[in-house]
Amino acid sequence: MSDAESGSADGSVKAATAGIADAESKVLQRIALIRKRKPVLRDDAITMSHGAGGKASHTLVAALFADVLSNPVLDQLGDQALLPIPGTDSLLAVTTDSSVVSPLFFPGGDIGELAVNGTINDLAVGGAVPLGLAAAFILEEGLDMSTLRRVVESMGAAADRAGVSIVTGDTKVVPRGKADRLFVTTTGVGIVDSRRRLGMPRIVSGDAVLLSGAMGDHGATVMLARGDLDLEARSLHSDTAPLHHLTAALIDGGIDVHFMRDATRGGVATVLNEIAQGCGLAIAIEEATLPVHDEVRGVAEILGIDPLYIANEGKLVAILPVAQAARALELMRSRPEGAEAAVIGEVLPEPEGMVFIHTAFGGTRVVDMLIGDPLPRIC
Amino acid sequence: MSDAESGSADGSVKAATAGIADAESKVLQRIALIRKRKPVLRDDAITMSHGAGGKASHTLVAALFADVLSNPVLDQLGDQALLPIPGTDSLLAVTTDSSVVSPLFFPGGDIGELAVNGTINDLAVGGAVPLGLAAAFILEEGLDMSTLRRVVESMGAAADRAGVSIVTGDTKVVPRGKADRLFVTTTGVGIVDSRRRLGMPRIVSGDAVLLSGAMGDHGATVMLARGDLDLEARSLHSDTAPLHHLTAALIDGGIDVHFMRDATRGGVATVLNEIAQGCGLAIAIEEATLPVHDEVRGVAEILGIDPLYIANEGKLVAILPVAQAARALELMRSRPEGAEAAVIGEVLPEPEGMVFIHTAFGGTRVVDMLIGDPLPRIC
Repeated sequence: MSDAESGSADGSVKAATAGIADAESKVLQRIALIRKRKPVLRDDAITMSHGAGGKASHTLVAALFADVLSNPVLDQLGDQALLPIPGTDSLLAVTTDSSVVSPLFFPGGDIGELAVNGTINDLAVGGAVPLGLAAAFILEEGLDMSTLRRVVESMGAAADRAGVSIVTGDTKVVPRGKADRLFVTTTGVGIVDSRRRLGMPRIVSGDAVLLSGAMGDHGATVMLARGDLDLEARSLHSDTAPLHHLTAALIDGGIDVHFMRDATRGGVATVLNEIAQGCGLAIAIEEATLPVHDEVRGVAEILGIDPLYIANEGKLVAILPVAQAARALELMRSRPEGAEAAVIGEVLPEPEGMVFIHTAFGGTRVVDMLIGDPLPRIC
Repeated sequence: MSDAESGSADGSVKAATAGIADAESKVLQRIALIRKRKPVLRDDAITMSHGAGGKASHTLVAALFADVLSNPVLDQLGDQALLPIPGTDSLLAVTTDSSVVSPLFFPGGDIGELAVNGTINDLAVGGAVPLGLAAAFILEEGLDMSTLRRVVESMGAAADRAGVSIVTGDTKVVPRGKADRLFVTTTGVGIVDSRRRLGMPRIVSGDAVLLSGAMGDHGATVMLARGDLDLEARSLHSDTAPLHHLTAALIDGGIDVHFMRDATRGGVATVLNEIAQGCGLAIAIEEATLPVHDEVRGVAEILGIDPLYIANEGKLVAILPVAQAARALELMRSRPEGAEAAVIGEVLPEPEGMVFIHTAFGGTRVVDMLIGDPLPRIC
């Protein structure tokens, strides 16, 4: 498509642009059709991509886990399962995540804090009020006790800050060389009351798309902390943070939130694709509105990765009525974890399941899910 | 102490036996006192013992996890956490377990079936009715897709048999050499109604101790399946089974069960110690009543391990009023998973926290928790 300068009021340019837009629209429609086919698992073995949260992960989930274990709750494939609680009109939210981040400690956080915040966030984006967390450790024989203590203390501090308790746990040990120091699986339970029911089916064309802050801080930080890049960026640190106060601010502030999801593995781009495919609508975002810190932009350029695909650990995408977008933005920005929130786009009727971006230069391109795993073991 | 032959009706022998019993009683009291001291974590690094479910595991939990993360729910250190559900008089039971068994497949089961049944059992022994399970996978890069599929299908089949759904999950992948093919962490949620409240504080002196079936099948099977022993025992297979129907049979059958726990890592001996220490009473068991299959006895002899310490995956210990013991036994035996149930002992007022066994030869010895890890990665 033409760049910004050529977008004059000249009639012929307009006609040409419309022609290009028509062609684009047909391509988008065709891609949407291809995407609607049931995913097929072609790999004979697990690759790092299957854990990256992008396309391969989704195929594995759809073609194996969801296929074999199918039931009405699992089939919804939310960040959390919602179970009826006998004798109440509330729902029980359950969410689980294994944390395998490497290194265990990085600027702004560590595996323990990440695990606690990540699980709280999976509850929060579903509108759940956290009741408690479970933590299951897989430890490698020979792990320093002081390292384990540091992680457990960090989990305790994160749980205290969030006002959520770790109520049960498990510990297993495997021989040297059979794990990588420490893995922890956290599971969260929470209550969703009838006022807070969110879901993809509630999303409608015209809804506003909000992002609660700058993209990619966590992923960029962990890549640098791994030392592979021989780069330093002193002010860069993980954005790991619990988001349940921010989600409560929106809901208690009267915003009729339709859907929220935290943008972890695969980044904002992958979450937007999940949403578009899940609700059968399209999402258009404006590149110029996307919040990104300069240092993340720098790391992203060196890595050759768009910040849209870099993992966050304290950011969410919210879909809500456009009429409430300004107020929602204000509520997000009133909290430190939402200080850099922005309205980044809108929901469109079609092409079904597609995400595209209007670039700063006036172009439009398709934003696909993360493919491959450029940033392994980020969470 | 004297063996069976010397136990004649002769008065002098009786007096001598009483003297020995007095001396024994003093030793038991002293051990009980030593045990009451707060455990201290002296290890600088994690050893296999910390994951074996015995003494080192308990010290790690008490001196690190429970100490750092202390809160009223966690402090109870049950097989499951019990959380109040707002607006109801029911409790939410939450339990989590990582499964790291090696090999992944063994006679009678596999890691997936074990994970599902084990989590259901942790719910069941607390009197909870399972609501659903979460499953989080940590996969090693290069894992055969067919192996993963086999495990997931086994989990699905186990969940179907138990009538409990896997409602949510997570998948992470770590590079080759950073895990051992496949670990899975299952978390269960369930509802405990007021009729089913069990707990260590309910245990009283005089209660009967029941075991739901033969000891050590699972641990002995996995040891043999590992191939280290160059032994074969064709009819030996894991006892992995869900126990929630058996626990429901007891409770719905009107048995006022005081406490139950499944006897996994560390075996029946470790569970009995947990119970005695938890309720501040003593437990005496009769060796002659302990159900053990001949093949397990054979493997145990070769390994030099008492079957009391070998892991089970479908057996529970139940503490209940002695007046209801016969009826409870009948209810257990009416189900296939409880066909070999037995009354194995009784709760005594003292010495506090001690477990001892009356041997088949008329002797008495202390039964301690599992020390070390003679059977690594059994679950």
